[in-house]
Amino acid sequence: MTVKKLGRQTVAFANPPTIAGYASVVGKKEGDGPLATFFDLINQDDSFGESSWEKAESAMQRLALQSALDKAGQAPSSLDLLFAGDLLNQCIASSFAVRGQDVPFLGLYGACSTMAEGLVMASMTLDGGFGNWAAAVASSHFCSAERQYRTPLEYGGQRTPTAQWTVTGAGAAVLSREGNGPYVTHATIGKVVDKGIKDANNMGAAMAPAAYSSLTAHFSETGRKPSYYDLIVTGDLGELGKSIVLDLFRADGVELGNYDDCGVMIFDLPAQDVHCGGSGCGCSAVVLNGYLLRGMAEGRWKNILFCGTGALLSPISSLQGESIPGICHAVAISTEKGV
Amino acid sequence: MTVKKLGRQTVAFANPPTIAGYASVVGKKEGDGPLATFFDLINQDDSFGESSWEKAESAMQRLALQSALDKAGQAPSSLDLLFAGDLLNQCIASSFAVRGQDVPFLGLYGACSTMAEGLVMASMTLDGGFGNWAAAVASSHFCSAERQYRTPLEYGGQRTPTAQWTVTGAGAAVLSREGNGPYVTHATIGKVVDKGIKDANNMGAAMAPAAYSSLTAHFSETGRKPSYYDLIVTGDLGELGKSIVLDLFRADGVELGNYDDCGVMIFDLPAQDVHCGGSGCGCSAVVLNGYLLRGMAEGRWKNILFCGTGALLSPISSLQGESIPGICHAVAISTEKGV
Repeated sequence: MTVKKLGRQTVAFANPPTIAGYASVVGKKEGDGPLATFFDLINQDDSFGESSWEKAESAMQRLALQSALDKAGQAPSSLDLLFAGDLLNQCIASSFAVRGQDVPFLGLYGACSTMAEGLVMASMTLDGGFGNWAAAVASSHFCSAERQYRTPLEYGGQRTPTAQWTVTGAGAAVLSREGNGPYVTHATIGKVVDKGIKDANNMGAAMAPAAYSSLTAHFSETGRKPSYYDLIVTGDLGELGKSIVLDLFRADGVELGNYDDCGVMIFDLPAQDVHCGGSGCGCSAVVLNGYLLRGMAEGRWKNILFCGTGALLSPISSLQGESIPGICHAVAISTEKGV
Repeated sequence: MTVKKLGRQTVAFANPPTIAGYASVVGKKEGDGPLATFFDLINQDDSFGESSWEKAESAMQRLALQSALDKAGQAPSSLDLLFAGDLLNQCIASSFAVRGQDVPFLGLYGACSTMAEGLVMASMTLDGGFGNWAAAVASSHFCSAERQYRTPLEYGGQRTPTAQWTVTGAGAAVLSREGNGPYVTHATIGKVVDKGIKDANNMGAAMAPAAYSSLTAHFSETGRKPSYYDLIVTGDLGELGKSIVLDLFRADGVELGNYDDCGVMIFDLPAQDVHCGGSGCGCSAVVLNGYLLRGMAEGRWKNILFCGTGALLSPISSLQGESIPGICHAVAISTEKGV
């Protein structure tokens, strides 16, 4: 038992699960960005043929999961467990995506950390012996998020310089108990960290301390140095949050040379006019299940640390004057099993 | 591995975790009901001394977890994992309850099935070897739910006969890898079931088919008859949903004699004027962590099947004309380990 627990927050998988299939589905703006060639499906119509933005988001989840299952050579009926979550009130993008699918389902809420949270849960349950196949899915949609969190699109609201742009996209990963990698080898589960940031248009600053907290826990509990990883990716802090993480490590005398952020990577900054970058559960989900895992398959990286970051606020909590709790779950993925 | 998986939806724990501590915190109306003597804390002031109903809900979660930890003789720093969820948009009752607590946190969304979902996740991760202590917490608050899902309290809205009353309460269970029971022995993880009910004031009817689905899966995959259990409890279908479950089993030639529902049990019907009964994540959470586990400790029951039921709708999905997806996770709890 104790072998699996490396420290307060970090677990090491005894039999690291394989990510056997992965897929990403995005909208037009993401398809105009620098990672376009890595996405499985780019739809020029952000409605995905549905009658509401919320239904469009569910459609993206279904497409991403189906594509990931196809790549893994599995039917939905193979899945022992499906973990999914999104940003909508009561997580309806996920619930309605799963409706009609013959799969045991456990719903998550981790804000933009959901993809990482799903990987953690899927890996723990497979390694724990509770099935052979599990999937993790996460999504967000610019149009459903905008009217829920901010203002209806038709208002044409102004954005502050620190704001981020919610990614329209869904990512899905299908994990198997046995396989040839890439392997999920470790997970560092986040604590809620809140340093008092109250500006809901500056979520990068709110989440950066949570990222720093989980990253330092991961390095200390695994005994690994940041340089162990070919790439450390947070998602999605944006440009400002990324610079804060770099500063926090610099204060410890550590220069993170191999570090980037999904919110910065997914859009062409500043050309695409998304201010500090991308955000939303879909952001890190599509960067992982598009660019990152594709890059590992193509030999670009052997070891990555994927750190999903979430801002656990709501419009109500902001209106009530509350600061923004952040969380970050770090997941180590490697092309080699025995690391 | 295969030993732990009994069928498509059901897992059996190799080393069933013990529920080492449990606690329930409720408001005034619940304290006026028939289960009053089983709750740990009844507050005559539903604000719990906080400035908003949302913060009151977070306060209940903190009180319930602290009390459950006290009974287990553990500090928060013992917890390897905390699973929590609620009904509020972006699950802020849970996130803000966990803020400031030094505990690895994984957020859930399962609507009113959250307590059962948390037990499932805590049991799988402990049995999987990822820690020695885990907690599951769930809550709801009549006043925060009413203004979010229906109308502000000040409107004095009329309720339809099939409506249920959101319970003001939070329940917490602290599970340990080793202990003397009661033990979580099996879990049947639900699929999303939607039979087309669109009336958001009739959630019992919407969720009953999900309860029937998971119950029949549980019986078939474990080979157990309903009579194996001293008590089968759904939560929270209310009077109408309960009668539908009984009817669905009757159509199969099965008379469920040992069956009740948390939504029916928690209030005095019809005297407390809650129409079909209680609802909300807090309902099954406080009935389990008050009445049911206390009853097992006092020798009233040896084997119970706790079936958390959730309606995975949102006000937006209802306004868009959608029907209501339901889910049910069934958790077998026994005073004996080797069952």
